[in-house]
Amino acid sequence: MIRFRSLLSSSSSLVSRIAFPASSSSRLTFPACGLAACPNPSQGSSFLARAMSAVARSPGGSNLLLKQLFESKSCTYTYLLADVAHPEKPAVLIDPVDQTVDRDLSLINELGLKLIYAMNTHCHADHITGTGLLKKKMPEVKSIISKDSQAKADILINAGDKIQFGNLFLEARATPGHTAGCVTFVTGDGPNHPNPRMAFTGDTLLIRGCGRTDFQGGNSTQLYKSVHSQIFSLPKDTLIYPCHDYKGYTVSTVGEEMLYNPRLSKDEATFQKIMEGLNLPYPKMIDIAVPANLVCGLQESSVRSV
Amino acid sequence: MIRFRSLLSSSSSLVSRIAFPASSSSRLTFPACGLAACPNPSQGSSFLARAMSAVARSPGGSNLLLKQLFESKSCTYTYLLADVAHPEKPAVLIDPVDQTVDRDLSLINELGLKLIYAMNTHCHADHITGTGLLKKKMPEVKSIISKDSQAKADILINAGDKIQFGNLFLEARATPGHTAGCVTFVTGDGPNHPNPRMAFTGDTLLIRGCGRTDFQGGNSTQLYKSVHSQIFSLPKDTLIYPCHDYKGYTVSTVGEEMLYNPRLSKDEATFQKIMEGLNLPYPKMIDIAVPANLVCGLQESSVRSV
Repeated sequence: MIRFRSLLSSSSSLVSRIAFPASSSSRLTFPACGLAACPNPSQGSSFLARAMSAVARSPGGSNLLLKQLFESKSCTYTYLLADVAHPEKPAVLIDPVDQTVDRDLSLINELGLKLIYAMNTHCHADHITGTGLLKKKMPEVKSIISKDSQAKADILINAGDKIQFGNLFLEARATPGHTAGCVTFVTGDGPNHPNPRMAFTGDTLLIRGCGRTDFQGGNSTQLYKSVHSQIFSLPKDTLIYPCHDYKGYTVSTVGEEMLYNPRLSKDEATFQKIMEGLNLPYPKMIDIAVPANLVCGLQESSVRSV
Repeated sequence: MIRFRSLLSSSSSLVSRIAFPASSSSRLTFPACGLAACPNPSQGSSFLARAMSAVARSPGGSNLLLKQLFESKSCTYTYLLADVAHPEKPAVLIDPVDQTVDRDLSLINELGLKLIYAMNTHCHADHITGTGLLKKKMPEVKSIISKDSQAKADILINAGDKIQFGNLFLEARATPGHTAGCVTFVTGDGPNHPNPRMAFTGDTLLIRGCGRTDFQGGNSTQLYKSVHSQIFSLPKDTLIYPCHDYKGYTVSTVGEEMLYNPRLSKDEATFQKIMEGLNLPYPKMIDIAVPANLVCGLQESSVRSV
C-alpha cells in the first residue's frame, strides 16, 4: 500500500529541469593517456534512437543493464541499473554521490534511459548523497531509503519491499549493523533477471571487509547476523557489489566472502573482538554528511511508504 | 611455430617462489567504513578446494571468470581472466601494475587459479608493469607483449595470434597509434566464450577517450584506423575494458563509443585536429616507466615468439 504525506520542506525555487552539461569548462587532461574531458556532442532524437540500439545488457541474457561507477574521493561505487527490454528503459541509481551527478546523468542520457528512482542503501557518513541534486535536476525522480534509516525520502521502504523498474525488481533486505537502517538490494530471481543474482550491499558487506559499527546506531552483533542471515544465505555465486572499495576490487561473490572475508568468515565472538579492536578515528565527514543525507532529496516532493 | 632464444639478461638471484604475503604490516583503516587491510587467513588445501567451488563465472554461462581490478595512483585497470571450467583453472593477467602485484596474487591464490601468462597491451609510459615482479615471485609465469612494441618478454606476439588459457583464448588485434606496438585482446566467439564478447583495449580506446599519440611512436592517423577497423568492427554489444579510466567508468561498449566517444565518433580529419590540439604536458613517469617496461619480466626466462 502506498501512503503519501505532505512535504516537510520545500525549496522549489531551486528546481530546474535537467540540462545535461558540457564538461568542456572543466577540461582535465591526464599526461600519460591524454584523456580529456570533452563536451558531449549535440544529440537529436534519431541519435538517441541509435544509441538505444547500442545499449548492451549485462552478460547472461537478462534484460538488466548494469553500470558500475566510481567516485574516487570517497571511494564510493554508484550503480546504474535499467530494464533495457522495457520500452521506456526505466532505470535506478543506487548510492549516487553529489560530486558525480553530472557524469551519471550524462550517461543516463546517452544510454536513452529513464531514471525513476535514486536509492540509498543507508544514510551515509562519508559522502553526500547525490539524491538531492538529482531531484533538483530531475524532479520526477523519486528518492528511496529505508524507513529504519530515519532519513527522509519520497519513498520509505521496509524489509521485503520490492522496487520495481520495468519488468525487473530489486528486493530490499534489512541488513542493520553498520547503521540501524542499512538495506541490501538483491536482484530478483525470476525470468529476465540476471543469473547469477547480484547483491548491492552498501557498507554492510565490503569486499574482504565490512562497515564500521561504532557510529550511527552501529552494532556488531547485528551486522554479523545481517550478513550471515540475509547475504551469506544467497547462492554462493551471487555477485557482491559494495558501496565502497579502497583496494581496487570491483566485485566479489557470496562464496568468496564466506571463505575469505577476514572478519565475517570468523565466528561471531571473534568478529566482535575484531570490530571492538579497530580503534578507528572519528569519521571526518560525518558531521557534514549525515545531516545532509538525513534530508536527501526531500526538498521537492512528498513522502510515501510502500 | 614457437621459437626460443636465449636470455638477454638474468637476475636469477632475485628469483623466489611466491609466498603470499599477509598485509597486516601495512594495515590501513578508512574512517567512514572501517575497512582495514587484514591478513589472509591460513589456508590449507581443503580450504582451497572449497574456495574453488565458490568461484563464480562471469554472467552469461561462459566458462570465463573475469575480475576487473584498479590501481588508483595511475588509474590503471588490471584484468584477471581464467577458464574456471578447466581442471587447472588457468589464468592470465592483462596489464598488471607493480604496486598491486601482491593484491593480484592473493586473489589468484584465493580463487584457486593457476596464473600462466602476464600480458601487456603495450609498453606503458605512466606506470611500471607488474610483469617483472610477478615473474620474480612466480618464475613459471610467462610474460607476453607484442613484437612491435620492441619490448622484451617471454612470448612476443603478432597480430592474429591467439593466447590460449584452458579452452578459452584471447585474440590479439594490432591496434597501433598510441604506441607502435599496441594490441587489443578480444575474447573468442566460440562455445564457452562470453557473450557479448569483451575487448581489452589498453590505451587505444578509453571510455569516451583515447590514448595520446604524441609519444612512443604514436600516430593519430594510425590510431583512428586501428579503432575503426579493429574495434568498431566488432559487434556493437562488445564490452570495452580499457587500461585506464579517470572519471569512474568501468566498462563501455563498442556501440556506445561509436556514438559518444568525443574523439573517435568524429571523422578522421576532425579527430586529427583534436589530437593535434591537446597540448598535453610531458608524461611525468615516461623516463622511468618506459625503460623499465621495455625489459619487463625478461630476467628469468627465455624469449619466444609464436
